[in-house]
Amino acid sequence: MNIYFACSITGGREFESIYQEIVAALTKDGHEIPTSHLAKSEAVENERLLTPRDVYERDVNWINNCDVLVAEVSIPSHGVGYEIGFALNIGKPVLCLHHKERKVSKMITGNPDPALTVCSYSSIEEAVSQIHTFLQSL
Amino acid sequence: MNIYFACSITGGREFESIYQEIVAALTKDGHEIPTSHLAKSEAVENERLLTPRDVYERDVNWINNCDVLVAEVSIPSHGVGYEIGFALNIGKPVLCLHHKERKVSKMITGNPDPALTVCSYSSIEEAVSQIHTFLQSL
Repeated sequence: MNIYFACSITGGREFESIYQEIVAALTKDGHEIPTSHLAKSEAVENERLLTPRDVYERDVNWINNCDVLVAEVSIPSHGVGYEIGFALNIGKPVLCLHHKERKVSKMITGNPDPALTVCSYSSIEEAVSQIHTFLQSL
Repeated sequence: MNIYFACSITGGREFESIYQEIVAALTKDGHEIPTSHLAKSEAVENERLLTPRDVYERDVNWINNCDVLVAEVSIPSHGVGYEIGFALNIGKPVLCLHHKERKVSKMITGNPDPALTVCSYSSIEEAVSQIHTFLQSL
């Protein structure tokens, strides 16, 4: 599958190692992750070199062409919130994952869209397992 | 006008006093702000008492009925990012304001939607002035 993986960039990188492990697991499963570079440590610096318009158009194009969007939402992010809404609006299945000790906006957890799934996790193994369950349910 | 004022709740309240001053200025101008209580210090605690579904449906209903959405985006927030996309998608004019020393996601600053305006400010007076200019431009 083509999986758009969404994570915080400007908002903070405290969960960067989690992002990297999720991307590694999905890549190992044979999925295509157009955003895989955004999980890397150099992502913040590399994204700074692109114009805002280029980033917007690249990301929207990737969402239009993905099969599903998987978002790590432990760290608040305007961009990821926007992307979740954008993907749901064009009918893409969306999985939002967050660490069980991190609160998530009620605009995400309260969204009744049947294409949206929100899960918490306490370990990287559990996060990857939640993604597998979500993908199998499609 | 009916102005939906969007600000971070779960994501952090460091800019709470700015939220309050913006809401006070718009109320003084005679505008109706359905979200005015979200600028108050007790907002985090009060919102906790509501179910996620109730918050989602209340906020979406307010966005559907507003004339414009004004978002303070200095503090990252999934909810505010989602709301900005939701409002643009139904054709509402949107103003995103951020402190000049705070970075904003390129999914916001790079969005080519002509209904979206993004401005920075260095003082509360400048923030209110930017809102006045935006409202007069409509």
